[in-house]
Amino acid sequence: MSLHLIIGDKLYSSWSLRAALALDLTGTSYTEELIKLNQPDTRERVLKHSPTGKVPLLKTEHGTVADSLAIAEYLAEQFPDAGLWPKDTAARAQARSACAQMHSGFFAMRGNMPFDLSHDAPLSPTPPEVQAEIERMLALWAECRATSTETGPFLFGGATLADAFFAPIAVRLRTYQVKLPEVDAAYVETIYQWPAFKAWRKAALEEIER
Amino acid sequence: MSLHLIIGDKLYSSWSLRAALALDLTGTSYTEELIKLNQPDTRERVLKHSPTGKVPLLKTEHGTVADSLAIAEYLAEQFPDAGLWPKDTAARAQARSACAQMHSGFFAMRGNMPFDLSHDAPLSPTPPEVQAEIERMLALWAECRATSTETGPFLFGGATLADAFFAPIAVRLRTYQVKLPEVDAAYVETIYQWPAFKAWRKAALEEIER
Repeated sequence: MSLHLIIGDKLYSSWSLRAALALDLTGTSYTEELIKLNQPDTRERVLKHSPTGKVPLLKTEHGTVADSLAIAEYLAEQFPDAGLWPKDTAARAQARSACAQMHSGFFAMRGNMPFDLSHDAPLSPTPPEVQAEIERMLALWAECRATSTETGPFLFGGATLADAFFAPIAVRLRTYQVKLPEVDAAYVETIYQWPAFKAWRKAALEEIER
Repeated sequence: MSLHLIIGDKLYSSWSLRAALALDLTGTSYTEELIKLNQPDTRERVLKHSPTGKVPLLKTEHGTVADSLAIAEYLAEQFPDAGLWPKDTAARAQARSACAQMHSGFFAMRGNMPFDLSHDAPLSPTPPEVQAEIERMLALWAECRATSTETGPFLFGGATLADAFFAPIAVRLRTYQVKLPEVDAAYVETIYQWPAFKAWRKAALEEIER
């Protein structure tokens, strides 16, 4: 199967990171193409691949799949033995619910804590709506762990699509220096030690030097 | 299988409509509970069912599934023979991509053309960002039809989850009296003739009289 992933800057494109981590979970090889964001020709370059005008995009033998969540479900279906979603039905329903909540919400965090892997400073003051979303996020992670039939270090035991979707939140919590309960700090560290994430982060930080 | 759907007002809750149409596609029976939105006790009532504080919610033997898209995928998995997604892999990838785009976008249409089944007046003037999203929406529908291996009247032949997700857009286009190309006007009419949609709309309009 030939898979070609089109992404934005690794430093800034949180949704591209989600798709790349989803692809890593499949264990398959793929090619990658980076389109630099916020350039005069960015939109034109993306539109050559998809009328959505957005990244990430996954070019497959079944056409170009737009949107990180659709990419995730496509890969879960194409690689049924790779365990992209939790095996247990209730855990899987919760994982999908958590990813969908991420996909359509948490706008205060997303707006006030822009994703930037090179960032390293607290948000001060933290607006109350951001604080509320951080608390809701940690509660959502706890709901995932409570539903899981397997024990950590990821939300559902081993790494799944849920962790791919929450990795950019781990980045925000760490880069904006949010103080966390032990269990959540450990989860953020688990994300930071995830080999696929480490490779992405290293490449992102090297983007700065270019 | 016992399924219990928690929704908001049928007049106003476009995401609840999506979940109800998804359930209808399964052909299974389910119970329904309506929580009136924008009341002093709305949030408290929803929180009794789910920490998300949002509708729709689907209570299942595998726990409470929050978010319309997670509900859709849960039902597609539980009713594999009901054809909730298109059977063809490429069409299914496109359908998922289209639903995901709806789920995380089209904010100008959503903000400027609030979902209200009793509405009947044009948006004037139509802000340019709304016009651009309407055009993008019609292009997205055309992409779905072009990918489909079956011929209409729905986007992928017979009704699928994609139509459940776009039914509230059909409502907006009709209730805000947007002039449409013939193919799109016919699709809006197909949605309005969909028995599950008709039943929902009738109940919604009856809500006003209460």
